[in-house]
Amino acid sequence: MSEIKLTFPDGTVKEFDQGTTTLDVAKSISTSLGKNAIAGKLNDTLVDLERPINQDGKIEIISGKDDEDSLKVLRNTASLVFSAAAKQFKADLHFGEKQANDDGFYVDTDDKEQITVDELDTIAESMNKIIKKNDKVERTLMDKSELVEMFKDDPYKSSLLGAIESVQIPVYKLDGFVDFGYDAVLPNIKNLKHFKLLSVAGAYWQGKSSNPMLQRIYGTAFFKQDDLDADMKRRADIKERDHRTIGRDLDLFFVDPEVGAGLPYWMPNGATIRRVIERYIIDKEVAWGYQHVYTPILMNLNAYKTSGHWEHYREDMFPPMDMGDGEMLELRPMNCPSHIQIYKHHTRSYRELPVRIAELGMMHRYEKSGALSGLQRVREMTLNDGHTFVALDQIQEEFKRTLQLMVEVYKDFDITDYSFRLSYRDPANTEKYFDDDEMWNRSQSMLKAAMDDLGLKYYEAEGEAAFYGPKLDVQTKTALGNDETLSTIQLDFMQPEKFKLTYVGSDGEDHRPVMIHRGIVSTMERFIAYLIEIYKGAFPTWLAPTQVRIIPVNSKYHQNYAENLLSELRKKNIRAVIDDRDEKMGYKIRDAQTMKIPYTAVVGDDEMADATVSVRKYGEDESASEYVGMFVDSVSADISNFSRKGEDK
Amino acid sequence: MSEIKLTFPDGTVKEFDQGTTTLDVAKSISTSLGKNAIAGKLNDTLVDLERPINQDGKIEIISGKDDEDSLKVLRNTASLVFSAAAKQFKADLHFGEKQANDDGFYVDTDDKEQITVDELDTIAESMNKIIKKNDKVERTLMDKSELVEMFKDDPYKSSLLGAIESVQIPVYKLDGFVDFGYDAVLPNIKNLKHFKLLSVAGAYWQGKSSNPMLQRIYGTAFFKQDDLDADMKRRADIKERDHRTIGRDLDLFFVDPEVGAGLPYWMPNGATIRRVIERYIIDKEVAWGYQHVYTPILMNLNAYKTSGHWEHYREDMFPPMDMGDGEMLELRPMNCPSHIQIYKHHTRSYRELPVRIAELGMMHRYEKSGALSGLQRVREMTLNDGHTFVALDQIQEEFKRTLQLMVEVYKDFDITDYSFRLSYRDPANTEKYFDDDEMWNRSQSMLKAAMDDLGLKYYEAEGEAAFYGPKLDVQTKTALGNDETLSTIQLDFMQPEKFKLTYVGSDGEDHRPVMIHRGIVSTMERFIAYLIEIYKGAFPTWLAPTQVRIIPVNSKYHQNYAENLLSELRKKNIRAVIDDRDEKMGYKIRDAQTMKIPYTAVVGDDEMADATVSVRKYGEDESASEYVGMFVDSVSADISNFSRKGEDK
Repeated sequence: MSEIKLTFPDGTVKEFDQGTTTLDVAKSISTSLGKNAIAGKLNDTLVDLERPINQDGKIEIISGKDDEDSLKVLRNTASLVFSAAAKQFKADLHFGEKQANDDGFYVDTDDKEQITVDELDTIAESMNKIIKKNDKVERTLMDKSELVEMFKDDPYKSSLLGAIESVQIPVYKLDGFVDFGYDAVLPNIKNLKHFKLLSVAGAYWQGKSSNPMLQRIYGTAFFKQDDLDADMKRRADIKERDHRTIGRDLDLFFVDPEVGAGLPYWMPNGATIRRVIERYIIDKEVAWGYQHVYTPILMNLNAYKTSGHWEHYREDMFPPMDMGDGEMLELRPMNCPSHIQIYKHHTRSYRELPVRIAELGMMHRYEKSGALSGLQRVREMTLNDGHTFVALDQIQEEFKRTLQLMVEVYKDFDITDYSFRLSYRDPANTEKYFDDDEMWNRSQSMLKAAMDDLGLKYYEAEGEAAFYGPKLDVQTKTALGNDETLSTIQLDFMQPEKFKLTYVGSDGEDHRPVMIHRGIVSTMERFIAYLIEIYKGAFPTWLAPTQVRIIPVNSKYHQNYAENLLSELRKKNIRAVIDDRDEKMGYKIRDAQTMKIPYTAVVGDDEMADATVSVRKYGEDESASEYVGMFVDSVSADISNFSRKGEDK
Repeated sequence: MSEIKLTFPDGTVKEFDQGTTTLDVAKSISTSLGKNAIAGKLNDTLVDLERPINQDGKIEIISGKDDEDSLKVLRNTASLVFSAAAKQFKADLHFGEKQANDDGFYVDTDDKEQITVDELDTIAESMNKIIKKNDKVERTLMDKSELVEMFKDDPYKSSLLGAIESVQIPVYKLDGFVDFGYDAVLPNIKNLKHFKLLSVAGAYWQGKSSNPMLQRIYGTAFFKQDDLDADMKRRADIKERDHRTIGRDLDLFFVDPEVGAGLPYWMPNGATIRRVIERYIIDKEVAWGYQHVYTPILMNLNAYKTSGHWEHYREDMFPPMDMGDGEMLELRPMNCPSHIQIYKHHTRSYRELPVRIAELGMMHRYEKSGALSGLQRVREMTLNDGHTFVALDQIQEEFKRTLQLMVEVYKDFDITDYSFRLSYRDPANTEKYFDDDEMWNRSQSMLKAAMDDLGLKYYEAEGEAAFYGPKLDVQTKTALGNDETLSTIQLDFMQPEKFKLTYVGSDGEDHRPVMIHRGIVSTMERFIAYLIEIYKGAFPTWLAPTQVRIIPVNSKYHQNYAENLLSELRKKNIRAVIDDRDEKMGYKIRDAQTMKIPYTAVVGDDEMADATVSVRKYGEDESASEYVGMFVDSVSADISNFSRKGEDK
């Protein structure tokens, strides 16, 4: 029998017989490792403990309880046990793709036999029964042809088998259930103790929207109950903050992949929030000297060839449209070339600079359908975009001014949990960047000086600059814990060059301006997703879709009084409605809280008699009686002060 | 010699020798007709007076002085004489396409030898010299091959010849100049007395934006000087009102076919007007019970297959985009399918109806590049769109309500010159329409009753209804005299059917709603083009991009005072600027008038001493002194009252 050489993580190399298994290797090291080992990692790929090893390679013994690899093996096992149990529960069930990862596991099941959320508990019980029996998971190699025959009536398995090139395939058998496609599972399923089936959602077969919709069952598993409990708490918190859940509950928006993946529909409630924010930011920017424009979302492809986007950014762009008369039109992936057109439309003088062009600019970017998520990752978006054209010696002042605007806006939205990242070019690889050493050095130090000047904390990131210039990013986190860039200020030396932009200097000569790309409140989509999460859907009064909901105690007797109140509120541009549904008052009050409406105003006999309203603020248990005029004034003040919940007025 | 039969307009038929000419025919009728005839019309096509006629046909003698055909012959001749004169002026000049029509004539010349507007007078003089010589235009037939050889160095003529199939081509020679491609010219050029070369503009060779840009020379000609004078006056009036000219002069928008044909860029001035209108109409509609939404401009092509647009409207739609995962996305040509998604997202109850969904919805329609014009005919547009979903018995009330909204809006914009057209199905061809007799009869009479009820004048047009239901259109005219539909209310029985829309009735059963498509202020593009024309660019204060321009008499001494005034105005949200350019005061005051700014406020020593401003309103010759506070208040009142120019305040 020939020998093979296995290299361990610490670098030592040992010889073993060909056909040795990870279990053999573990035992050869120590008895306890032999007992605790659950899988191997051969050349960075997970392998079953009892899989024979026939070639030299790197080996690692997986025996941990909370590392990523151990959890993956555990969740693979949970996925297998789930499938076995589900198949016992519904004999005709077929299985599509499956995955175990650091977030848990999922298994796609076909749509013939629908598994409901209610049935998950029953299936979990069956899983426990299987685990209790503690049968060994039997791993054997089978000929592909044999498997093709075995699964010939299963369209999903047939298709998956078609994509496998090997002649022999590892097959897992448990309690009469047969499956393939795991990298490693626990040899002893009794270690699967702390698992949870979480939810059911639709998922296209192989992620393609033209394929049938399957049912995806989500679950997770841990080695310790404490870890599972902590994860359930984390999930509950995410769920409470998840903008997709809140978006649905408060009727803010929806996305229907049948009609268009990554293309959100803003329902009236969400549209109101968006409109308020759009007007707010435009008015703010106009007051700060920006000239707002509207530019077309389509442009001749040639412009993106000039800008370099077509060369470097094509895979994120939509397919060009051939207009039939030699013109190729492209949905814009960014607004800069459009604003350059505006700048170029006139001869510009140094007296005009800085020229600040801004727009709520709709853009389209191609994101893979798997990456799309609610309002956070979309294919059509509207960016609060602005481009300032400055002379070289105006950079620092304009950068500072833009930061001041940003800080002012963040304050109005009560955004506090963010950090500034100043991104420079990599000093060791300057050839990767736009070639002008002096400009880089000068502008990087100008940005730093501006930050210091304003006393803002930041961290510096070398090598994080754009190709065309240094930048400042404002970093936040989403509910799911992902990093998100909310605002950005980027210097650009390159596009003014490419588009040959000029201004006439005081010397009468043509000079090249510098371009500053900046976004304050990001795209409407991403920003509102972010706000939903930080507010948990409880929008401050100035942003709330409905600011006051009026509830007449008796819709017959108190309707008139309610309507007068409504009219008083609307005169002050307060978004108010009357809840005149045919429901009990208790239900209506609870519903107003569920919908997170800032003010619920109940009006009945007492209120009519005293010209008052009984006001209950969102999140408070008590109502207070207020005179109508004072109530209207206090809501107005709330709005114009951008008041936050819990803030003293 | 064989005989041919010619039929005259009055129906009489006469026999002539084969090869007879229109001139022969005219002389055979009367000597004076022989003298006055200038061309023939054979089978509805203009022919030269001396062209031999070889077959039976309809004949008409053209001898008038102001009918369309006579003018076309005259303008053909003017175009020929122009070309001959231009060629004498610039020997290397080539000629592209040409046309004579009821608006005048044009000749495209190549870009190698640029003809400037200033040179038009010189060329007109040369034309007069040629006319004075009164050479006869020599018309001969030449072999195509001979012409191909003759024009072998002329790329345009070569290309034009390539497209002609005949073996022999009529050729016109005048004063050494040789050309082809006229249907009929005057035999005696001395009758070309009253002509005018008008302007020079760029035009792509054969109208394709991928081709070189040629120079198009425009001119016109009449038989009488009075007619020419009247036409020049009409042109001046059009020019004064033409939204494209005003759009350029007031820096409102531009279109650059190089970047995208039919895709306007709104400069800050135009964007301000648009933003004010957008906010106005949204606020108005929200107050009238509309729920404003935002919906994606892209949709799965399948939706347009369901709606029927793909079948019936495809040639007006942009090419679909293949997203690579089986999804075909289409830029929407209308918003109805999007609003249907919003309606369908919830189960609707009869209690909710009418459900009014509205949006400033961006749409894309493919227009041929030749049809594009400024903001009036574009490829990307944003429609003030709304769809109301009603029960059958709510049609009349909702129609009336929509009309009331429309009339209110028209009043705010001071739109008075329009007419209502009520369009019914053609009673003789009911099979051409959506098949439901009762619904048609009932809804048509409901619309009529509503109009009568509101006491609005209208005219009825049978056969002008849409396929899917009757409608009301509001018709206006553009500066160029074209009919334009400004607003529309359309009933639609079909789409609720196609998309299977329902609401739950009071009986607990599902019912089909009726859909009302309505647009009040049209697309932003078309509406603002229209407003520019009716206001001649002098926008009322509430819409004017700049409402007050402040001119300090001396920028050193009066700058502070001017800035205080600016700040007072801006506090009241008045769009004011200071003109601190390095120019003379007289120039600045004239410029403010040229830019049609409602208020010019001059501030100098006297004003500083008295806390006043010297106010000059647009279009008035006199200034008046006003106290600052009163001035600010009167501008504010002007804005909130939607005041028109010349109106008493």
